[in-house]
Amino acid sequence: MKIGIADTTFARVDMAAEAIDALRSATVELSRYTVPGMKDLPAASVRLLREQGCDLVIALGWVGGKDIDERCAHEANIGLIMAEVQEGKHILKVFFHESEAPGDERRQAEIALDRARKHALNALLLRDGTGLTPFAGQGRRQGYPDAGAIEVRP
Amino acid sequence: MKIGIADTTFARVDMAAEAIDALRSATVELSRYTVPGMKDLPAASVRLLREQGCDLVIALGWVGGKDIDERCAHEANIGLIMAEVQEGKHILKVFFHESEAPGDERRQAEIALDRARKHALNALLLRDGTGLTPFAGQGRRQGYPDAGAIEVRP
Amino acid sequence: MKIGIADTTFARVDMAAEAIDALRSATVELSRYTVPGMKDLPAASVRLLREQGCDLVIALGWVGGKDIDERCAHEANIGLIMAEVQEGKHILKVFFHESEAPGDERRQAEIALDRARKHALNALLLRDGTGLTPFAGQGRRQGYPDAGAIEVRP
Amino acid sequence: MKIGIADTTFARVDMAAEAIDALRSATVELSRYTVPGMKDLPAASVRLLREQGCDLVIALGWVGGKDIDERCAHEANIGLIMAEVQEGKHILKVFFHESEAPGDERRQAEIALDRARKHALNALLLRDGTGLTPFAGQGRRQGYPDAGAIEVRP
Amino acid sequence: MKIGIADTTFARVDMAAEAIDALRSATVELSRYTVPGMKDLPAASVRLLREQGCDLVIALGWVGGKDIDERCAHEANIGLIMAEVQEGKHILKVFFHESEAPGDERRQAEIALDRARKHALNALLLRDGTGLTPFAGQGRRQGYPDAGAIEVRP
Repeated sequence: MKIGIADTTFARVDMAAEAIDALRSATVELSRYTVPGMKDLPAASVRLLREQGCDLVIALGWVGGKDIDERCAHEANIGLIMAEVQEGKHILKVFFHESEAPGDERRQAEIALDRARKHALNALLLRDGTGLTPFAGQGRRQGYPDAGAIEVRP
Repeated sequence: MKIGIADTTFARVDMAAEAIDALRSATVELSRYTVPGMKDLPAASVRLLREQGCDLVIALGWVGGKDIDERCAHEANIGLIMAEVQEGKHILKVFFHESEAPGDERRQAEIALDRARKHALNALLLRDGTGLTPFAGQGRRQGYPDAGAIEVRP
Repeated sequence: MKIGIADTTFARVDMAAEAIDALRSATVELSRYTVPGMKDLPAASVRLLREQGCDLVIALGWVGGKDIDERCAHEANIGLIMAEVQEGKHILKVFFHESEAPGDERRQAEIALDRARKHALNALLLRDGTGLTPFAGQGRRQGYPDAGAIEVRP
Repeated sequence: MKIGIADTTFARVDMAAEAIDALRSATVELSRYTVPGMKDLPAASVRLLREQGCDLVIALGWVGGKDIDERCAHEANIGLIMAEVQEGKHILKVFFHESEAPGDERRQAEIALDRARKHALNALLLRDGTGLTPFAGQGRRQGYPDAGAIEVRP
Repeated sequence: MKIGIADTTFARVDMAAEAIDALRSATVELSRYTVPGMKDLPAASVRLLREQGCDLVIALGWVGGKDIDERCAHEANIGLIMAEVQEGKHILKVFFHESEAPGDERRQAEIALDRARKHALNALLLRDGTGLTPFAGQGRRQGYPDAGAIEVRP
């Protein structure tokens, strides 16, 4: 299995290094690809899938605190999903938004890195669609504690 | 007929189990595929259609209560529709939104499971486009009671 | 000429029956395809074009009165246009919105059926792109009276 | 060179006639294609490019004054751009919005026709990408007077 | 390496000249393509990639100060990302928004030109995905001073 890691120079922490660290004991091949900003991630992901033979991509984005940044995040996500549909492969969309912790840089870094790490581990389980089934409907979260499952049959 | 069931670890109830239960007496083959969140459903659906030979996919999503969750739901829906258009096959988009019953977890679970069950039954009828025609214009709803038809010619 | 008619069980009047009635004296072949809701219309339309050999599709949707319904209508329209671009054929997007006559069911039915009927007639004229040219710039409307042309050279 | 002109019956002035008049002394072949509304322009444009052999399309739309009209304009534009990307050819998106001159029909007609005329002339220059380069960064506008270039090096 | 430079007549400064100047000492071939407005950039970019053999495109847009201009920017960005995904090549989306410096033309020009210059330099480094990796997570900005990296491990 070969995993692509796409990241940006716009981000304010090295999310890719964190994802790579999370995968250090797994028997996977890695390929890293750095672009200026999150809207460049779709093209990078397609290139990792098509030209570098990756089976899956982890796309790491950092969303600034302005309205325009949120719109860019929306555009980037649409593009990443387009790429997934076209290529028939997963691109995990791992985005940290400054609006999650406005003005608190330390907390921003924590959430971004936790999310990168957890999604890197998801990537290992995702491949054939059954690895995450034991956790289906369990209210899992990345960047925060899990919400948990709702007890439905008392 | 082979039906794919795509679900998430983000959901807080096991919507896939409910859909599978609704289909237990039907003579269909099932394939389940679990992903982290709803934005991963388009890629999962394409893989179920292309690689696992499914004729139709039921995509089950749980939408959190924040604005960003609603935007993700929008992106996921656009992606699922893109996948349908590209593949020429149906992907039933079964999304529960926490905003439908804010703070009431029991009710949230009820709506989500009712919707999953009813759409699973729709999937059986949908295949050739005529099975649901007897119910056309009847104001049918999933997750809630039917709105019913408006009497137009007194 | 073969025309596909795609409609929904969500709608509260039988828009497809109205469109079919409008076409009863035309020498066209018809194929009807019913889906649960408007977001299922893009896949139905692609199937009518690709698998059932339709030259054009009339896609009939009913949009509920909530914000989420309007967002679904937006997603459905984007999907229908994607399908048109991919297939190089027309899909007439005939949507009634409850917000056009909130709370007045009789009026809702009237607008929806008028729109279905008028767009069915448009379908007959549209095929080669010249049938509607005599009406170009004439401010024609469906569901309402025409706005008419603005007199520009006194 | 063959130019397609796509227009609508929804429009309240004959924008296509104005565009055709602007091109009357140019040595181009023209093909006109009329559809009901602006959301039908993407399919018309694809057909003009694919089936009628046009090198470029001028798509002329009139946007009503309601919120829903603006959303339709957004959907139409997304579709036209999709068509351009798919076909690798230009479709000039010439839309007049009633919100540009609310309630003033004479002014609405003026802006719409000026925009149609100026974009028809742009179409002649656009073809190989170098014809408009002498005007790059000059703040040119269609429907209004030019904004002009900002003097940057005093 | 061949770089395409797509720009507009709508812009109020010559962003392409600035990008070309930034690349003057690099051993790259350049091809310039000018269109009326930013929504024409996706088609221009596809043509630069497909027909003129460019390896990468720098798409330079100027966004006016009205709401409609921002919506056009959104549509243009979606289209550019679609083109990137379809072609599997990068198109750097370099947009200046008048809302960044309302009413201050000199400042508008400064930001637009700085952004064009910096992204032109990014283009040189981006090609294989490793040239920008030394700057990953460093909070780099174009048009403004860098935000810098957050110190995460004290």
